[in-house]
Amino acid sequence: MDDFVDALTEIVGSEAFKSDAEALQKYGLDWTRFYSPDPVAIVFPTNIEMVQRLVKFANEQKVALVPSGGRTGLSGGCVARNQEVVVSFEKMNRILEFNEDDNTVRVEAGLITGELQAFATSKDLYYPVDFASAGSSQIGGNIATNAGGIKVLRYGLTRDWVAGLKVVTGSGELMHLNKDLVKNATGYDLRHLFIGSEGTLGFIVEATIRLIRKPRDLTVALLAVPAMTDIIAVLRVFRGQVELSAFEFFSEAAVVHVLNHSGLSHPFPSMRANYYVLLEFETDHEAEAMQAFEICSQRKWVVDGVVSQSGQQRESLWRYREDISESITSHTPYKIDVSVRISRVSEFLAAVEQKLIEEYPEFEIIWFGHIGDGNLHLNILKPDDWTIADFKLSCEEVSERVLAIVEQYEGSISAEHGVGLLKRDQLRFTRSEAEIRILKSLKQVFDPNEVMNPGKLLS
Amino acid sequence: MDDFVDALTEIVGSEAFKSDAEALQKYGLDWTRFYSPDPVAIVFPTNIEMVQRLVKFANEQKVALVPSGGRTGLSGGCVARNQEVVVSFEKMNRILEFNEDDNTVRVEAGLITGELQAFATSKDLYYPVDFASAGSSQIGGNIATNAGGIKVLRYGLTRDWVAGLKVVTGSGELMHLNKDLVKNATGYDLRHLFIGSEGTLGFIVEATIRLIRKPRDLTVALLAVPAMTDIIAVLRVFRGQVELSAFEFFSEAAVVHVLNHSGLSHPFPSMRANYYVLLEFETDHEAEAMQAFEICSQRKWVVDGVVSQSGQQRESLWRYREDISESITSHTPYKIDVSVRISRVSEFLAAVEQKLIEEYPEFEIIWFGHIGDGNLHLNILKPDDWTIADFKLSCEEVSERVLAIVEQYEGSISAEHGVGLLKRDQLRFTRSEAEIRILKSLKQVFDPNEVMNPGKLLS
Repeated sequence: MDDFVDALTEIVGSEAFKSDAEALQKYGLDWTRFYSPDPVAIVFPTNIEMVQRLVKFANEQKVALVPSGGRTGLSGGCVARNQEVVVSFEKMNRILEFNEDDNTVRVEAGLITGELQAFATSKDLYYPVDFASAGSSQIGGNIATNAGGIKVLRYGLTRDWVAGLKVVTGSGELMHLNKDLVKNATGYDLRHLFIGSEGTLGFIVEATIRLIRKPRDLTVALLAVPAMTDIIAVLRVFRGQVELSAFEFFSEAAVVHVLNHSGLSHPFPSMRANYYVLLEFETDHEAEAMQAFEICSQRKWVVDGVVSQSGQQRESLWRYREDISESITSHTPYKIDVSVRISRVSEFLAAVEQKLIEEYPEFEIIWFGHIGDGNLHLNILKPDDWTIADFKLSCEEVSERVLAIVEQYEGSISAEHGVGLLKRDQLRFTRSEAEIRILKSLKQVFDPNEVMNPGKLLS
Repeated sequence: MDDFVDALTEIVGSEAFKSDAEALQKYGLDWTRFYSPDPVAIVFPTNIEMVQRLVKFANEQKVALVPSGGRTGLSGGCVARNQEVVVSFEKMNRILEFNEDDNTVRVEAGLITGELQAFATSKDLYYPVDFASAGSSQIGGNIATNAGGIKVLRYGLTRDWVAGLKVVTGSGELMHLNKDLVKNATGYDLRHLFIGSEGTLGFIVEATIRLIRKPRDLTVALLAVPAMTDIIAVLRVFRGQVELSAFEFFSEAAVVHVLNHSGLSHPFPSMRANYYVLLEFETDHEAEAMQAFEICSQRKWVVDGVVSQSGQQRESLWRYREDISESITSHTPYKIDVSVRISRVSEFLAAVEQKLIEEYPEFEIIWFGHIGDGNLHLNILKPDDWTIADFKLSCEEVSERVLAIVEQYEGSISAEHGVGLLKRDQLRFTRSEAEIRILKSLKQVFDPNEVMNPGKLLS
């Protein structure tokens, strides 16, 4: 053990090595909170060469490495519970180079997402990937899980903003993937293979990120939609008229929690609908959006609506959507993040609700999500008189049932939270046996000794 | 041999089997024209099951298969010169399903690109990938080479429009990759591995393609830019003001060829610049574009400009760019398609020009390209008194020199034409040894018996 510590401190320096109980607890966990962390040590490399030496060491010693970013994951992708060495990117958090001709910024993997957004703003540009944990998640982790969020409808996923990657593979080789080019038709694009690989192929150590022109002024509209089946029709009408940067939905039940928690007043004082849709577009296309609203009103798909008249009002309207997660936290929500094709959202949601009402009538269900992308977040709230242990056990059963419905509707068991530990054993609901065999062989190619985040994504 | 023919006709039917000399010549070649075709037979499967049976047969008999689309490639990716069986997708060319909620269309691999574009238009939607060979190229081939073209600046590459793929791997397994979802964070994205794989991992048999809202009316501006080094500055100014859907460049030498060939008059009757830039944007942002023009004029980066006032005028301005290829055809151009980061375009272009002027003063060089993506097409024209054989030999030398400069500038040896046979032995200029080793191992995973397009991309 002393040799082991010596070897690691020799690589990263003694001040970048931790094995005290507090550190092991902190760096061994993510936001899932379901697992008992048990790493052997935490190291904080400060440059790429150190990362390469750590990987070589791991291969020689057959030690498992767990890459660790902001640890905001919700699937246990960076949990360490088997005496792994956690490799934290906290100290590799620099902005290395901004290029105004390329409109790109090259950063180390540990840069906080929010700092990247702020940097873009400081250059009068925009990094459009945004989500609740942007204040603590790191860009390397975003890439490893292909993070999505609230602007996917217009701007796509993290995948769409990665011009190039530097990675250290599981066998310790440094590769500069795609060299930050726009066009490069020279064989299999390994950059895209690393995006979403959850640290199982190697470490992402550096990324070159594309930035774009800031959006013009934005307007938000909040619409009351009585019938689930009409929501997609509303999307279709608006999408035909104007480029949307968000199309979010949530239920009246979700609004009730937000009101209780935040003290906001109900967006529609005089009426209630089953569902609400929040959409966002550039203000200079407000006329087109109003036309869409007219069409939806005439067909009775939308029964009421409110449109932001200022930046401040826009922010307030967003709160009905953005505060949901926080407003249900005290109910120990069990979150299931799934997606289906947009055309199947209504049918799928109805099928899941029916199943849950039949079999688990005691559970309160809160729906919200990025419905414009077919992405639904299902939240099951713990009844006050249940123990956490019983609740978790039941939820695992529920999850298995829901994911089986996902399979039936040809959806994804994880829309944007990754697979990690939490959904590893349900991967078969989304990927075929043949595909899973291929995934395992691909891991073997990059990480022959299985030192990279073993047990995550694949068993 | 009879057994062989019998087995193949048993799979596809006798009317879908050809081995006459004319067919072997036609289906054994693409637009490169440098190779002598020598396939053993051509088959025309009409469904996925036939494709699977062909692959199983090939694995049993150790026969090589060459996927064949519109054969408009410029790198020999679908050339058959070693007794391969060519698998043409000509008869798998149906539009299978349009979904107006998903905004997607599911098509067979053999659908002509232009027909997909026309179908989108018929639904009041838009498929934005467009290039010179759209009238005969097939969507499967577009995906296999990640085709780019003239709208990449705004709309990205083919990769960005593929929601899902059905593929038959080199071991005959059918996989539905990504299931046409927007968000799907469940492990390595094999869809992206197949995009750009040039038929070396398996057959693309079906694709689900995203469509979008049609662009509003477009305006084209043609600008005269004396100095190469100012072109990127012009891009930066315009990009900051308005969303560009194209930013193309070409040299005065290119214009001269277009004028001689087409009978058009010079776009700037009273002056000549070394370079011209063509840019396109939505008409309702013309005011912002004019501001950008003012800035560029004041700084003397742009010395003259013309802006389209009608759809017809827009088309005419595009002709100065689009007619270049055709106008130099009679000079047997040797085409080199490369890219570098946008910020390095000027420096790179100067370095190449200097090299060529020094060492090959007898060659006329025509530059044009999608400079907003860092993509340059270098065309070397054959001096009239040279034989084709001598010219080709010299050009291969030139190509080797140019690609070495590409390596020095960390660019790509093939921006959008793929690697195929033509650039296979120069892959090292763009991909590291370690990467090429990985590429070979990945092929092994999907195609263990090397039946899929052997010798292309990788040696």
